[in-house]
Amino acid sequence: MASEYMSMDNLRFLMYEVFETPELANHPFYAEYNKDTIDMMLDTAKQLSDNMLFPFFEEADRYGTEYRDGTIQIHPSTNKFIKAAGEGGWIGAAAPAKLGGMQMPSTLLNAVHFIMGAANNSAMGYIGLTGGAARLIYSFGTKEQQEKYIPKMFAGDWQGTMALTEPQAGSSLSDLVTSATPAGDGSYRIKGQKIFISSGDYSGVENVVHLMLARIDGAPKGSKGISLFIVPKHRINEDGSFTSNDVTTAGAFHKMGQSGYATSHLIMGEKDDCHGHLVGEEGRGLHHMFQMMNAARISVGVTGAAIASAAYYASLQYANERPQGRRITNRDINLPQSLIIEHADVRRMLMLQKTIVEGSLGLLMECTKLHDLMEIEEDEEKKKNYDMLLELLTPVAKTYPSEAGIVSVSNGLQIFGGYGFCKDFPLEQLYRDIRICPLYEGTTGIQSMDLLGRKVTMGNGKALMLLAGEVQKAVQEAMNYDDLKPYAKELMRQGQLLQETTQYLIGIAMTGDKEGFLADANFYMELFSINIIAWQWLKQANVAKRALLTENPQGDRLQFLESKIHALKFYFKYEVPKTAGFITILKDTEQLTVAREKELIC
Amino acid sequence: MASEYMSMDNLRFLMYEVFETPELANHPFYAEYNKDTIDMMLDTAKQLSDNMLFPFFEEADRYGTEYRDGTIQIHPSTNKFIKAAGEGGWIGAAAPAKLGGMQMPSTLLNAVHFIMGAANNSAMGYIGLTGGAARLIYSFGTKEQQEKYIPKMFAGDWQGTMALTEPQAGSSLSDLVTSATPAGDGSYRIKGQKIFISSGDYSGVENVVHLMLARIDGAPKGSKGISLFIVPKHRINEDGSFTSNDVTTAGAFHKMGQSGYATSHLIMGEKDDCHGHLVGEEGRGLHHMFQMMNAARISVGVTGAAIASAAYYASLQYANERPQGRRITNRDINLPQSLIIEHADVRRMLMLQKTIVEGSLGLLMECTKLHDLMEIEEDEEKKKNYDMLLELLTPVAKTYPSEAGIVSVSNGLQIFGGYGFCKDFPLEQLYRDIRICPLYEGTTGIQSMDLLGRKVTMGNGKALMLLAGEVQKAVQEAMNYDDLKPYAKELMRQGQLLQETTQYLIGIAMTGDKEGFLADANFYMELFSINIIAWQWLKQANVAKRALLTENPQGDRLQFLESKIHALKFYFKYEVPKTAGFITILKDTEQLTVAREKELIC
Repeated sequence: MASEYMSMDNLRFLMYEVFETPELANHPFYAEYNKDTIDMMLDTAKQLSDNMLFPFFEEADRYGTEYRDGTIQIHPSTNKFIKAAGEGGWIGAAAPAKLGGMQMPSTLLNAVHFIMGAANNSAMGYIGLTGGAARLIYSFGTKEQQEKYIPKMFAGDWQGTMALTEPQAGSSLSDLVTSATPAGDGSYRIKGQKIFISSGDYSGVENVVHLMLARIDGAPKGSKGISLFIVPKHRINEDGSFTSNDVTTAGAFHKMGQSGYATSHLIMGEKDDCHGHLVGEEGRGLHHMFQMMNAARISVGVTGAAIASAAYYASLQYANERPQGRRITNRDINLPQSLIIEHADVRRMLMLQKTIVEGSLGLLMECTKLHDLMEIEEDEEKKKNYDMLLELLTPVAKTYPSEAGIVSVSNGLQIFGGYGFCKDFPLEQLYRDIRICPLYEGTTGIQSMDLLGRKVTMGNGKALMLLAGEVQKAVQEAMNYDDLKPYAKELMRQGQLLQETTQYLIGIAMTGDKEGFLADANFYMELFSINIIAWQWLKQANVAKRALLTENPQGDRLQFLESKIHALKFYFKYEVPKTAGFITILKDTEQLTVAREKELIC
Repeated sequence: MASEYMSMDNLRFLMYEVFETPELANHPFYAEYNKDTIDMMLDTAKQLSDNMLFPFFEEADRYGTEYRDGTIQIHPSTNKFIKAAGEGGWIGAAAPAKLGGMQMPSTLLNAVHFIMGAANNSAMGYIGLTGGAARLIYSFGTKEQQEKYIPKMFAGDWQGTMALTEPQAGSSLSDLVTSATPAGDGSYRIKGQKIFISSGDYSGVENVVHLMLARIDGAPKGSKGISLFIVPKHRINEDGSFTSNDVTTAGAFHKMGQSGYATSHLIMGEKDDCHGHLVGEEGRGLHHMFQMMNAARISVGVTGAAIASAAYYASLQYANERPQGRRITNRDINLPQSLIIEHADVRRMLMLQKTIVEGSLGLLMECTKLHDLMEIEEDEEKKKNYDMLLELLTPVAKTYPSEAGIVSVSNGLQIFGGYGFCKDFPLEQLYRDIRICPLYEGTTGIQSMDLLGRKVTMGNGKALMLLAGEVQKAVQEAMNYDDLKPYAKELMRQGQLLQETTQYLIGIAMTGDKEGFLADANFYMELFSINIIAWQWLKQANVAKRALLTENPQGDRLQFLESKIHALKFYFKYEVPKTAGFITILKDTEQLTVAREKELIC
C-alpha cells in the first residue's frame, strides 16, 4: 500500500519560495501568519490527515453511502474527522476573528484542503462545503442569522450545503422552480426538489443548513427572479431544541467514485411546513451564490490536484519497489529484473504526473494569492486588477487540475499494470474519484465558454493584458539563466500565438456568430491551460535555479531543486508542442458541430 | 436507460460495402458465407445479445465475482449465456468443420463478438477465451487432446483459459517459474502460481482447461525454456468422470470494472498432483502461445470498440431526450429548454465518440479481413504480405480502440452531466470496464515498443510499404470526388510526415541507442494511429460517396451516408491536427525519460 499522498517539501517550496505567502503577514489583517505559524498549521493539518483521513480512505469508500432509515449512512470515521476539524478551527478558518474565525489566508487554507483532500477527498468535501456555506451567511446574512448558524457550523456540529441543482435544471440555473412563498412573518415556505446535494444529509449530523436558491412567488422568470435562502433541516427553537423543517431526504445518489461522500436528493415542503429565510437581497440570489460558486471552483481544482497527488506518490513508490523486465540496454536473462522506474515509458508517465500535480498546485496558489491580495489591498485600481486576473484564471484553475488530473491518475494506474485495475491498490479508487471533477460546479464545456466568452473579452481584454504582464515577469527572470532562456523564449512565442488565436476568435464573435465563436471553446481552454501551466513551471524553475546558484544545496534539497528544472524541461518537451494542434483546430473555420436543420449525428 | 448499444446498419455497411466480406465465399473454405448467411448470423447474434446479454449488463456487475466455497461466484445469467453460445455454435465457430466448427471467417466472428461485447463485455469474455484456447489445442495439440477437450469446450461445458501471468513475472514472460516435471508416463507434474487468470474458475462451470506456460525441469532460462501445457481443473477419467487435478483457486481479484468477469489466482501442485500435458513442441510454448496472444490483441480491440459503442448509443439517446439550457442563438427564458444535442459542445463530444467507435471498427475489420485472406490465400508471396500487414496493424488495433475508447466513453459520460457519474445510467460502468483494455495482453507501452521496435523495422520496412500501398488506393479513389479531395491530399501529406518521422527515429536506432529510439514509442503509436484511423475514415467516406452518387438514397439511408462524410470531416478537423505535436515531440532529441545515475523523479 502507498504510505505517502503528498509532498510537504513541495508545498513549502510553493508557499514560501514561489508565492512568498508569509509576506501577507505584513498586513495587519494577516499579521499572525508569519512563516512559523504557517509551518505549524501545515504540520498540524498533515498530522490530522495522517491520523484521521488517510487510514480510512479505502474503508469509507467500501462502506459507501447507503440510504437507510430516512438518512444516508456514512462511515463513522468521517463524523469523527468533521468534529476534529471543527475543534481544530479548520472549518471557520477563513472567517474574520470577530466571527470566531482565524482570518486565515485563502492560500494557507487551500493548502490545508490540498493535504486533506490528498489523504481522503470525500471526507474533505464535508468541511469545505460547511466553510463556504457559512461564508455566504456572514457575507450576506443578518446579524441574527450569523449568530444562529455560524458557531455551530464552525464547530462541525451542523453541516452546510449549497442547494442549487434541480431535476429539470442542472447547469441551467435560470430554469429552477423551487418556490418560496412569503409566510407573513418575514419567513418563507419553501416547496420543491433539489438533487445532487453534496453532504445534504447523513448519519450522525445534528443539523444541516442548506444555502438554497429558490424563486419568490411572482418573481420574474430567469436568473433575476432567484433569491437565496437558509433552509435548515431542523428549525431551531428558542430553547435550542429542534423542530423538523419538512426537508425530506428522499434518497442517496450512487456514484462511481467519492463513494464516501453523501449526495442527497431533497424534497422540501411535502407538508407545506418547510421554512426558509431570505439571505441578502431578493432577486440577488444567483449573484450572492457566485461567491460560493467561485470559491467552489477553486476547491474542485484543489480536489483534482489532491487526488492526482495521491496517485503520483502511490505510483512513484510502486515504481521504486516493483521489479519487472529488464532495461533495454541490457536484457541478459541472467540479470535480476530491473525496477520498473528504470523503464523510459514508466519514467515518462511519472514525470507527466509530476508536472500535472505540481503545475496545478502552482496555478491554484496563484489564484489563492490573488484572492488574499484582493482581500487586503486598499488601492481600488490594484484591487480590481487582482480581481480581474483571478476571474480570468478561475475557470482554468477549476478545469486543468480536473481534466489533466484524470490523465495523470490514469497514467499512475497504468504504472501498476493489472494491479492498477484491482482494489488491492488505491489507484482504481482515485481514478473513480477524480472523474467527478470535470462535472462539479459547471462542466468543462461551461468553464470553457466562461473563459473564452466572458473572461477573455472582459474589460476589452484587460485581464489578458494583466496576465501577459505576469508572464513577462517570469520570462524576464528566466532570460538571465542560460539553461532557462530557451524555455523563456518558447513561452513568449506561445504567448504570441495565444494572442493571435484569441484575436482571430474575437474576429468571429464580431461578425455576430456567437455560436461559431464558442463552438470550440474547449480547445481554447486546452491551449490556454498549457500556456498557464508552462508559465507556472517557468516560475518554479526560476526559483529553483536561483536557489541552485546561491545555496550550494546538497542531498535531498539538491535533488528537489534539480527535479524542478527537469520537470520544466519535460513539460516544454512533452506538453507544450500540443498547442500547435489546438491552434490549427481553432483557426479552422469549417463549422462541423453547430446544429443544422439536417441531423448528421446518428 | 439506454435501449441500444450498437448499430446493425453500421456493422452491415462495413461488412458488405467497405470490406466486402461476402467475397470470401468465392473460396471453397468459406463457401457458405454468402450475404444471406452472414445476415442471418448477425441477426441471430443480435437477438441472443438482446435477450441474454444486454438485460444483465448492470445486474451482473452489481452481483460481482466473490470468492466463496473455493470458487468464484458469478451471476447465473452468465452461465446461461455461455451454454446458449455453445449451443448456437459460437464458441467453436472459427474451427474447421471437421473439428466440429463452422469455418466462420474471423471477420464475421469478430463482428459477432463486437455485438455481444457491446451488450455485455464481461459475459462475452468467457466465450472468446474458450474459443481461443481450443484453437491452440487444434493448432498444436495431438489428435487425442483434440478429441478429449474440444467438443466439451465448443459446447460451452468446459471453459478455456490462457494462463501466462505470474506474480513475479507480469509482462516479462521470460521470467516465469511455474515448473513442469516429467512424470515418466508422458505427462508432467505442474507446480507454481498464476494470477490474473480471466475466467480461470467460476460457479457452475463443469471443468476448466488451462492453456498454461511452464518451464520443464532443466530447460534454459528465458523464453527458450518455456513450453505450453494443457492443465485441466479436473482430470478426465476413462469413464468420463472427474478427478481433481490439484489446481486450487486461491482467490478472486476485485476489480474496478468488468466486475462480472471472474479473474482468478490459481495455485498448481500444492499436493504434487497437478497433471499437465505438453502441447506442441518442448521449448516452443511462447511461440505457440503467440497465436492466441495475437488473436487476443484483436479481441481486446474489439472489446474496447464495443464498450465505446455502447457508450455512444447511450449518450446519443440521452442527448436526444434531455432538455437543458438554450441554444446560444436564442436564450430567451420564455422558450422551452433545448435538447442538449443542440449544443455545439455536446455535438462535438458525440461526433468524437462516433469517429472513434466507427473508425476503430473499420481498423479491426481491416485486420480480420487480412486474417481471413491469409487463411485461404495459396500464393505464398501474397500470403506473406497479408501476414506482415496484419502484424503491423495488430498493436494499433489493440491500442487505439482501447485508449481512444477511454476518451470516447469519458466524453459520453460527460454528456450525462452529474448523472454520468451515477449508477442510474450505464456510462459509469462502461467507464470502469473499458479501463482494463490498455492493460490486457500487453500494456500500451509494450504495444508501442512492439510497433516501433519490431513491426515498423520488420523486413526492412516492408510492412510499412505495403500499408502505404493500401492507403494509396483509398487516396486515389477519393481524388475523384471534389469534396473528398482535400482529405485525400491531407492524408498523403500526413503519410509523408509519418515516413519522415519514422526514418528519423530509425536513424537514432542506427546509432545503437535503442533506448533513445524507443523512449517515446507511445507518441509514435499516437501518430501512427491517427494516420490509420484517418485512412479508415477516407475508405468509409469513399464508399458513402459512391453510394450517394449512384443510389439516389432517401431517408435513413441518406442520413447514414451523409453522416459518414460528416464524420470524415470531423476526424480531419479535430483529430488529425494533433499529429503536429507528436512529430515535434518525436523529433526532439533531448532525452528526459531515460534513466540516469542521478534520480530526478521525486
